[in-house]
Amino acid sequence: MADPRPPCVILNEPQLAENIGAVARVMANFGLSDLRLVRPRDGWPQERAWASASGADWPLNDARVFQRTEDAIADLRLVYASTARPRETQLPVLTPREAAAELSRAAGEGLAVALLFGGERAGLETADIALSHGIVTIPIDPKFRSLNLAQAVAVCAYEWRLTVLDRPREAFAHNIDEPAPGEMLVGLYEHLEAELEAAGFFHPPEKRPSMVRNLRVALGRARMTEQEVRTFRGVVTALSKGRGRVLAKLAAQKAAKEERGE
Amino acid sequence: MADPRPPCVILNEPQLAENIGAVARVMANFGLSDLRLVRPRDGWPQERAWASASGADWPLNDARVFQRTEDAIADLRLVYASTARPRETQLPVLTPREAAAELSRAAGEGLAVALLFGGERAGLETADIALSHGIVTIPIDPKFRSLNLAQAVAVCAYEWRLTVLDRPREAFAHNIDEPAPGEMLVGLYEHLEAELEAAGFFHPPEKRPSMVRNLRVALGRARMTEQEVRTFRGVVTALSKGRGRVLAKLAAQKAAKEERGE
Repeated sequence: MADPRPPCVILNEPQLAENIGAVARVMANFGLSDLRLVRPRDGWPQERAWASASGADWPLNDARVFQRTEDAIADLRLVYASTARPRETQLPVLTPREAAAELSRAAGEGLAVALLFGGERAGLETADIALSHGIVTIPIDPKFRSLNLAQAVAVCAYEWRLTVLDRPREAFAHNIDEPAPGEMLVGLYEHLEAELEAAGFFHPPEKRPSMVRNLRVALGRARMTEQEVRTFRGVVTALSKGRGRVLAKLAAQKAAKEERGE
Repeated sequence: MADPRPPCVILNEPQLAENIGAVARVMANFGLSDLRLVRPRDGWPQERAWASASGADWPLNDARVFQRTEDAIADLRLVYASTARPRETQLPVLTPREAAAELSRAAGEGLAVALLFGGERAGLETADIALSHGIVTIPIDPKFRSLNLAQAVAVCAYEWRLTVLDRPREAFAHNIDEPAPGEMLVGLYEHLEAELEAAGFFHPPEKRPSMVRNLRVALGRARMTEQEVRTFRGVVTALSKGRGRVLAKLAAQKAAKEERGE
């Protein structure tokens, strides 16, 4: 059996090219290669990244740049977001070891998986965390939380590597249904949100971002299959149009009657 | 019982002050503080080390400098040497996890323990390795062995930290609030299903039971909190009524116009 495809590393708004290079280096150390950059602050490519990769050029050469996290995860089935402060998000919180085990199991079934990291200063926005299926928290000392980006990748990539080395060569018996790709999930989210917008659900408007986030987090936890995503799109359509059509028909009949003076 | 004293980190002939600072930073991340330098190439102290420690100053402020590895380990009881190439030494070779377990056990008995790392270019000489009690080998991909010094320290320090946390699984357990009671969930399901029924979603009718089951399974996996159940009831109401009301209003206006012959 072929080795499973290692997780992508997605860096969200990374600032320093040196750190991107250091991430590439440690990815290569632990057998990872698919690097994705969302809105790198100083643009891309940056020569200093290659200089600090110490020869681990291939993740940089093949790195893809995205404008939105939604696009970076479009083809992925299981994404864990690394953050030191899990905050109030209602997502499962895993240790790097637990996350590696989950990623390994999914990758062993042929699914595309990823680790998502925030930028050096701000870390991940809750809106980006809401696109993931869970949170990885590295058990750092609360007395000094400032973990370098490449170090965070190192710890997670190291744990992944251990799962590869420990991997039994026979096929996995474990059988979870394949989660839908990120692109389909985002499609469902945006469909639902557009209909809710039309229905006047998001009020006051300034609460829209947190309301959207909460909906996405709860739905993301369900780890829907493709079929389930299609079903829920049907649900959204049926609720927003179907019942509406019935009401519209009744209202039209009533209005016509009134015009006729009945 | 007080926490065991964490291992010292001994850097043998480190070259770049930036790397010494990066090591201090990652030591602080994982609760280590005793840093020892053997023949640092550019002398000591070096301002650039502090600059790259991002505020983890204390391991640098207290760092001790030695001319010989023998002197750096003088007060230590258990030392593991980190090297990528165990060579022909007749020393036990441990994974970082195994080494952390051994160090933790010894430190728990009050013994002073350490991790010994070689310089960036050459790694450790066999003479220095021979001063240790065993070898730690980080399981890097043989295709790209060039591991950054601070990354090597990070992996070993991370494994140490896990032993301190003792039961990482429980320490990090779950972030998830209490799931809503079944009664609330069923309330949401029945609300959704009634609206879908009204919207003509369940066709053909004989498939209704399996469609309902599939919806409930997917939503159930999300393990919603009470607040989330309330939110999703709001979603169902908004979708089925809100948009419907808009359509109904438009349809009524149109019907009235038509009656008036406009």
